[in-house]
Amino acid sequence: MRRGKVHNLPVVLVVEDEELLQDIVHDALKEGGFDLTAVASGHEAVTMIDSGVVVYSALVTDVVLGGQMRGWDIARLVRQIDPSFPIVYMTGAAADEWAHEGVPNSILLTKPFAPAQLVAALSQLLHLASSD
Amino acid sequence: MRRGKVHNLPVVLVVEDEELLQDIVHDALKEGGFDLTAVASGHEAVTMIDSGVVVYSALVTDVVLGGQMRGWDIARLVRQIDPSFPIVYMTGAAADEWAHEGVPNSILLTKPFAPAQLVAALSQLLHLASSD
Amino acid sequence: MRRGKVHNLPVVLVVEDEELLQDIVHDALKEGGFDLTAVASGHEAVTMIDSGVVVYSALVTDVVLGGQMRGWDIARLVRQIDPSFPIVYMTGAAADEWAHEGVPNSILLTKPFAPAQLVAALSQLLHLASSD
Amino acid sequence: MRRGKVHNLPVVLVVEDEELLQDIVHDALKEGGFDLTAVASGHEAVTMIDSGVVVYSALVTDVVLGGQMRGWDIARLVRQIDPSFPIVYMTGAAADEWAHEGVPNSILLTKPFAPAQLVAALSQLLHLASSD
Amino acid sequence: MRRGKVHNLPVVLVVEDEELLQDIVHDALKEGGFDLTAVASGHEAVTMIDSGVVVYSALVTDVVLGGQMRGWDIARLVRQIDPSFPIVYMTGAAADEWAHEGVPNSILLTKPFAPAQLVAALSQLLHLASSD
Amino acid sequence: MRRGKVHNLPVVLVVEDEELLQDIVHDALKEGGFDLTAVASGHEAVTMIDSGVVVYSALVTDVVLGGQMRGWDIARLVRQIDPSFPIVYMTGAAADEWAHEGVPNSILLTKPFAPAQLVAALSQLLHLASSD
Repeated sequence: MRRGKVHNLPVVLVVEDEELLQDIVHDALKEGGFDLTAVASGHEAVTMIDSGVVVYSALVTDVVLGGQMRGWDIARLVRQIDPSFPIVYMTGAAADEWAHEGVPNSILLTKPFAPAQLVAALSQLLHLASSD
Repeated sequence: MRRGKVHNLPVVLVVEDEELLQDIVHDALKEGGFDLTAVASGHEAVTMIDSGVVVYSALVTDVVLGGQMRGWDIARLVRQIDPSFPIVYMTGAAADEWAHEGVPNSILLTKPFAPAQLVAALSQLLHLASSD
Repeated sequence: MRRGKVHNLPVVLVVEDEELLQDIVHDALKEGGFDLTAVASGHEAVTMIDSGVVVYSALVTDVVLGGQMRGWDIARLVRQIDPSFPIVYMTGAAADEWAHEGVPNSILLTKPFAPAQLVAALSQLLHLASSD
Repeated sequence: MRRGKVHNLPVVLVVEDEELLQDIVHDALKEGGFDLTAVASGHEAVTMIDSGVVVYSALVTDVVLGGQMRGWDIARLVRQIDPSFPIVYMTGAAADEWAHEGVPNSILLTKPFAPAQLVAALSQLLHLASSD
Repeated sequence: MRRGKVHNLPVVLVVEDEELLQDIVHDALKEGGFDLTAVASGHEAVTMIDSGVVVYSALVTDVVLGGQMRGWDIARLVRQIDPSFPIVYMTGAAADEWAHEGVPNSILLTKPFAPAQLVAALSQLLHLASSD
Repeated sequence: MRRGKVHNLPVVLVVEDEELLQDIVHDALKEGGFDLTAVASGHEAVTMIDSGVVVYSALVTDVVLGGQMRGWDIARLVRQIDPSFPIVYMTGAAADEWAHEGVPNSILLTKPFAPAQLVAALSQLLHLASSD
């Protein structure tokens, strides 16, 4: 598409292994005008950010995942690579853990959340990252 | 719907007795991915929150209503039930009153506002409620 | 004093009827470089702000007072006179009430608080009032 | 349309001389429920705000434009007319300049940005303008 | 002292094993009107908060300490006991680590800092804790 | 002094040509625990920051000065050298100009201000610079 060549969209890296939530996140981001890459494990996420092949604008990660890494671990590793990387956590049960497991300047979305909340959370963190 | 079973949406309680504005609010919230219950009076709103049958995520209320309670009164009663309940006021004329009639950590939308502003206001208050 | 002629200090209006706390507030404000006028009732406070004889920069009020007006009432009346008037409440017991009785953009100090917290609260509100 | 008569939308003034970006901004604002007027030069923008014929709610301006005025200059002139006018800058290259050329309480969007970010930036500034 | 009986001061728990910095922190807090308890290790800090014998208002901790626990670890343990506990880190070298090792809603002071900055950081976190 | 060797204080660069205000600023900063260097013109200020001989932590500048540069100009030049340099303006008359002449993420103190407000403004900007 011609538009893509001139005005690329910011790409969000999504870590989610539950198919239904992956669809919801996909639709919300696309509707908000973000591109996204979805992976199912923290291992893949960290590898892709570390490789630098694509410049991602933000990380959206579920807290509870099938693999060894939880969302908390992924965020810490990503922040070691880039100390100001915008991070949104999604969680159904572990909201209290954010206070001791989360990283500074992140946002926690507790399920159920409206798709618009995800888009608003990303926009808010991206403004902080680029402007303040 | 199957999606609803797995990933319920947050439900917003809307107090509005003007049909046109009710439609605009309805469309804006639905498009942003919120569910909503709309009532026409403060009496109904307080009763429904107090009953606890449905867990509402936020209150959106017009300031000027036909009944005895104004939006300011409804918000105060709701905050007595839940001291951190997110509240958005909508008003066409009474913007100055927010400074003495509003509750802390609320947002006032002055008409005319864009539907996206309502969704952004709710998202901002919900992030504060869950994360800060 | 010569300094006073050239560089007047901002004057804070304090409503407090407990002598000990009046002393603490007096010392904290003086040390921070604020001038203050202390009154014991909400009636006096509102009259003095309304008269406009002295231009006060902020209101610091206890919530529980001997007279008919509580701090919540005083703040509402003051905000009707000036919708952006900076307000700090001090309270020993009624912290939960702030969520439904307080006005927007105010700060609540729960006793015990350090004198430096009062000075910091005032400074924060004055920056908002003059700059944002 | 009957709705327009009853519930007018806020009108955003957009300064953009690149057709493609004008389309993207147009679509994003319309989808968010904003009306807009688009002009191609700072001269037109300042004239229209100064005339007062239409009451604009915010300015969205590209930084690099074909005419003599850059976005930085337009914002300064607009803020002389209205000191609290909400301003969003869009820029592909000049992000560092915001720190010395931008005005206080503005937001900078660096390209590429998602359309939802523009809507979120406007909503955030409009809440500050009307409520804080 | 009579004042202490009526208007107790908030007590800050300080974890610092360097004597000079302990003195600076002690003087700054006393001058700002805070009481403090100083310990030299994270083990003592967590034990004292966990015991609940004294209700501490905030934690001020050096990041680099002689024992096994660093400031980052202490803060995580304290936040497991109380998810909204105000935390200030002090560090001479490890400023970048805050982005991945720090907890949300904390403040990092990088040495050298002025004593007033410590008092201001505590006041800011205490306002958030009690009012927002 | 031995303390200076181990725990240096942050140094603030002050631009002020009125002797009385220079004294007030000097006393306020010293009491808050800041070191300072005071100069009387923008030319000197920019030269000293540009030279890099001393690492200054923040700039405090009067808006109206005897020389050719006003505080607004000094801040813009300083931000070109360091885009995140913390800046506090002091002004007796030109408060409205801040909206179009000020730089983003700065604080304006309107005279008369309490000395504690200056210390609080600096602390707030330094926290933003080091932590957010």
